[in-house]
This record gives sequence, C-alpha cells and structure tokens, in this order.
Amino acid sequence: MATENRIYIFDTTLRDGEQVPGCGLTKKEKVRLAQALEDLGVDIIEAGFPISSPGDFEAVKSVAEVIRNSSVCALSRAVEQDIVTAARAIENAVRPRIHTGIGTSDQHVFTKLRTTRDRILEKAHFCVSTAKKYVDDVEFYAEDAGRTENSFLAQVIQEAVNAGATVVNIPDTTGYCLPSEYGQKIKYLIDHVKGIENVIISTHCHNDLGLSTANSVEAIQQGARQVECTINGIGERAGNTSLEEVVMILKKHNWLNYTTGIHTEKLYSMSRLISETMNMPVQPNKAIVGANAFAHSSGIHQDGVIKNRDNYEIIDPAEVGVNKSSIILTARSGRAALNFRLGQLGIQLARPELESAYEEFLAVADQVSVVEDEHLQEIVAKLQDVA
Amino acid sequence: MATENRIYIFDTTLRDGEQVPGCGLTKKEKVRLAQALEDLGVDIIEAGFPISSPGDFEAVKSVAEVIRNSSVCALSRAVEQDIVTAARAIENAVRPRIHTGIGTSDQHVFTKLRTTRDRILEKAHFCVSTAKKYVDDVEFYAEDAGRTENSFLAQVIQEAVNAGATVVNIPDTTGYCLPSEYGQKIKYLIDHVKGIENVIISTHCHNDLGLSTANSVEAIQQGARQVECTINGIGERAGNTSLEEVVMILKKHNWLNYTTGIHTEKLYSMSRLISETMNMPVQPNKAIVGANAFAHSSGIHQDGVIKNRDNYEIIDPAEVGVNKSSIILTARSGRAALNFRLGQLGIQLARPELESAYEEFLAVADQVSVVEDEHLQEIVAKLQDVA
Repeated sequence: MATENRIYIFDTTLRDGEQVPGCGLTKKEKVRLAQALEDLGVDIIEAGFPISSPGDFEAVKSVAEVIRNSSVCALSRAVEQDIVTAARAIENAVRPRIHTGIGTSDQHVFTKLRTTRDRILEKAHFCVSTAKKYVDDVEFYAEDAGRTENSFLAQVIQEAVNAGATVVNIPDTTGYCLPSEYGQKIKYLIDHVKGIENVIISTHCHNDLGLSTANSVEAIQQGARQVECTINGIGERAGNTSLEEVVMILKKHNWLNYTTGIHTEKLYSMSRLISETMNMPVQPNKAIVGANAFAHSSGIHQDGVIKNRDNYEIIDPAEVGVNKSSIILTARSGRAALNFRLGQLGIQLARPELESAYEEFLAVADQVSVVEDEHLQEIVAKLQDVA
Repeated sequence: MATENRIYIFDTTLRDGEQVPGCGLTKKEKVRLAQALEDLGVDIIEAGFPISSPGDFEAVKSVAEVIRNSSVCALSRAVEQDIVTAARAIENAVRPRIHTGIGTSDQHVFTKLRTTRDRILEKAHFCVSTAKKYVDDVEFYAEDAGRTENSFLAQVIQEAVNAGATVVNIPDTTGYCLPSEYGQKIKYLIDHVKGIENVIISTHCHNDLGLSTANSVEAIQQGARQVECTINGIGERAGNTSLEEVVMILKKHNWLNYTTGIHTEKLYSMSRLISETMNMPVQPNKAIVGANAFAHSSGIHQDGVIKNRDNYEIIDPAEVGVNKSSIILTARSGRAALNFRLGQLGIQLARPELESAYEEFLAVADQVSVVEDEHLQEIVAKLQDVA
C-alpha cells in the first residue's frame, strides 16, 4: 500500500463535539476519552479550544501530557493571544499541533468579520507564521470554505502554505455543499495552489443536509488525505462527519485502496463510551453503531439472513465489535424466523404444528410490538394444551 | 418548471419503517399517520405489506379508504397470492399502486432464492403482468439492485418495462453503494433499457454506510424521478433515506431545478409525530429535525449568529416548522452570547460589569453543562452584592 493512500483520521469529538449543549466534559473525562481515542487508533486528537475557558485550557494540557502516539491538537482563532494560549496548553505533547485560521466566505469576511479580503490574506499568513514559532505542525482552517468562491479560497490557502502550514483544512462549516461541489473545490485547490502537494488537505464537513459522510469520501477521492470527524457524528447543530461511517466505507470498498489506522473492532464500544459520557443518545437507526444497525425484522429479511448472512448484511457485526446480528420477532416476521427462534429455545415443531404456532404468533404480534421468548413459550404451551 | 423536474416523494415509513422492532402500528395509528403524510404532500404512501399479517391487511385497507390525494401502495413478493392480497387491500383506493418484485443480485438469485437468472426474468414479467390485472399503476422492484451486475439488472428491468410497469425501483437494499456507483447504475439503465423513458425510475436507498441521502440525490441527477424514503430515516437496520434531508437538499440547491410537492413547514411536526407514535427516538444531532439542528453553542458560532443568522445557518428554522434557532450557553460560549441572553432577560451590563459577569459565568459553566437563566440571575445578583 502506497503511503499516499493512507487516510489520516483527525478526531474532533473533544472539541467540536464537546461544544454541544449538554456535552461538556470535566478534565478527568476528557483525559479518559482521549486515551480511548488513542487506543482506537486515531491519528490526531483535537483536544479543545484552550482560550475558551480556564477549565478547557487545563483539560487540553492534561490530555497533551498523557497521549503518546496520537498528535494532540489545540484550536485557536487568528489572534495572537489564542495562539499563545493554545501553544502553552500543548507544550508537553509528544506530537503537538496548533489548528488556527479564519473565515473566508463573503458572508464571513463582510458580515461576520466586517473586514476586507486583503486583510484576510494577511491574517492567514499571520496566524500560521505565529503558530510556527511554537510548533512545527500547524494546521490552517479556512472557515466556511464550503461557501467561499474557489478563486479567493485558493489565494487564502496559498498564503497558509507559503507561511509553512503542514495541513490545510477546507471546512464546509454550514453543511451546505453537495458531494460534487465539495470534491470540485478540493480538486480546484490541488490545481491552483503552488506547493499544495507538500501539505495534507483536510476535510471538515457538517451534516446539516445529511451529506457530511459523502462529502468527506468524495474529497478523499479528489485528493484529501485527512478527515475531521467525531464519534457518533456529534458536533455543532446536526453534527460532524461520523468517524465510524467514513472508516467503514473505506474498509468495505477496499478496491478504492485507502487505509486508516483505526482498529474497527473497537468502534462499537467507543460509540457507547462517548454516548454515555457526553449524554448524547445514538438513534437506533444510526449507521454502524445504532442499536438496530444489525437487526433484521421483516420476514423477507429474516429468512434471507438465516439462509446466509450476506443476503442482507455487508458488514460482519464482529468487525465493529458488535457480538451478533439479531433476529427480532414482530408482526412482519415470517415462519423461518419463528422456527429459527424456537430452535434457539430448544423447541422443534413439525410442519402442521409450526403453521398453528405461526397463526397464533401473528395474533400475538399484532397486539405487542416485539414478540419475546416468554410469548413464544406461551404460544407453544397453548398449542400443546389443544393437542 | 418543466414537469420532468418534478421529483415524486414515495414515503415508506408505514411499510419499511413499520417493520422495525418496536415500531409496529395499530390500524388506527396507521390511518392517522397516513393522513398526516398526505397533508405533508407525499405523492405515494406505501401503506404496508398486506400478506404479512391479517392486522396489516386491515390497516392497509383502512388507509386506502381514507386517502384521497396521495397514491396508496401495497407491497408484495413475486407470488400470486401476495399480489392478489395486495390488490384486495387497496381496491377502494382512489389511486392504487401495487409494488412487486424479486431479488436480482447473484447473492439473492443463487444463495437466497436458489434459482437461475432465466427464472428471475420470467418472474419479473410474471409479477408485473399479474399485478396489471388489478391496477394500472404497477411498480417493480429489483431487490439488492445495488449489488446486481448492471447488464443483468438491465435485462430484468427490460422485462418489467415490457410487462407494463409504470415505475421501476432500483433498491440499494444493503446500503453498500457509493454515490458514484449508484448514479452510474441509474445512467446505465437509461442507456440500455428500451422504453425506460416512459416509466419513472425510483431510488430506494439504505443507510448502512451513511450514504443513503447522497445516493438518492446523485440518482436524481442521473435521471431518477421518484425517491423512496421515510420520516426520520427509520427502516430496516440503519434505516432508509430521510425524506426531510432529500427534500431540503432539493429546496436549498434550487439551481438544480428540481421541485417536490412537500410542504416543508410541516416537516418538524411530522418528525415529532412519527417519533412519538412509533417509539423511535431522533438523535439531537439528526439533520433537519434533531433537537440541536438549529442550536448554536460555541462562542464563535453564537457571536456569528447574533450578528447575522446566515453566518452559520443555511436553513431558516421556520422553513421546516421550527420556531427559532437557539443560543444555548455553555463553557464554550463567548461574551456576545452571554450579553445577548442577558438582554433577553432584560439585563443590561456596562463593559466592566459584563467582563466580571463573564468570568463568573465561565466558572459556573465549567461546573454545569448548560447555563440556564436561573444561573444568570444568580451571577448578576452576586455581581450587584459585590458592587
């Protein structure tokens, strides 16, 4: 595998994820989660935004002191005091990175920052060169790049590259882009920024329209080599790209020839840990890590899975650390699923008995949402009473 | 707007969604939800799978009797008894549709159905022509089309078109396809099936890898004109394409020139109704309808939104029926957000007082996850005691 096909996973659960109402972490919790992320195989851990509060400064500092293999990254705006504070927070890290930058869309330049494009170009150069005084590894972000005109974005990124940025991050801050638009933006930068072949291009996508995963994967196919993401896709508003989705797409589409350093069998337990520590429920129909992600319920699907799991499953649940796929009995289950579950209870019925049990099962299933083992035992007992 | 750019929304919340463990609906509930879907502006309501249980037969029949504007669709396998039962269930519908079909991937043909490709071609013709005896509007599905070789898929679809199908559905049953692969599949069919220009091509994507929305939109761009989807993206395993995501992508990217009949201002209440009736929680970071979809929490974002909502919002919350975007105070909030919320409480502080209040605010925020109005009042009271 050529190294140019190694995709770096930049986890921002502890920064973009932790910004979310109700997700705030204590220092101790942040350290514990950072260690779990390192065990998962994340390349870069964005630990926080040190200038934002004294508590977050201390938390980032503690993370930097315990993490040995992953890079530890601190966020800052293009403001000297932010950058200095970020640098101090990560000064004991083995692999420190400062992430700094500024808004570049017309909306941000003229309405939010109330400045000029020339001033943005200066600021881009300034923030990277300032951060470079403290660390070698400096990542620049062009906030709202998703809505930034490509020609101006290329000028901004050129300044960051000239100032020594090692990574350039192209955030779709508002989650607006279609995959084709976002991919073309990455391609445009590759074609128009001198020296960009020596830096890593990063994606940072938001999920406001449900496209963050597709945008990240399209950007990889166009040349991006770092993906910013979070466990369970948490983050501002509708959240960020889900780490588990991008990693499993690359794994299951191995003909694309990309690799990551993630130990996928730890994904499910990592998802549970984040959900519980950060009080963020994962909906049952969440891809990869939702409670129903490997549950089969309709009769057609259950019958198919009992015959051969590959009929309806593209991921072996064990690959992501889930013990087994489930056959759950409902009013939409068929005879094959009923027979399979009866077999698991040690009950074998002949054809006509199974038919009677199935009729009774449907009557029960139309009343209750999920038919449990106790219901099955009652159904079988009733059948034997009649016989 | 040319009619060829009208995208038909086929909602399968009551069929694919209702299959999910715990989501089973009573007849009364199904009717109520179907009426809400009709009010939302859904073009086709897939009401259920009548052969699956007597309760579902009755529920589909009741839906067919009350819905006047939307088409009412019933699912069946390529089995005569299924089709006859589906036809009976919807015989009183104003716009009845039968949805029938069979598996087409090698996995389904050889492992699940244990048959031959020739037999599948015969069955495809048989099920459509059988359904045509009962209704004019017949939709054919090629189950697991996502993993079916394009050349064989085109042969199957040709049989369905020859037999009189009005809609051909190309399901990515296992949620495996990348957008580029799925889009090319639609394009291949357009290029290789005679008469396909006279039928509607439908998508039916599953979200196992988090790509169902992107796949549906890519298929539209390649020529599909019907999208099968569910409210909140519920459905088998990781669920189906989210109706609200596809509809809002088409609305916000109006330069694509596609329209739907959905009244978007009803999306949020529809989402709540489905979640509550079907016991399926929506995670806070769900696109469009999650509790945090319009909540801004970091200082940078809150300051930006207070200056101008468009800085961080691409959708006006009112467009989807949400009252307003929220500024929630946490340890990542800045002075601007604090001042804004104090102002909402009728409290105005001079600069130095605001600075003291902010320091106190950060100390509180590092302790609690979300700073509420009562905390703010305590902070201000304390400040006044000191002064």
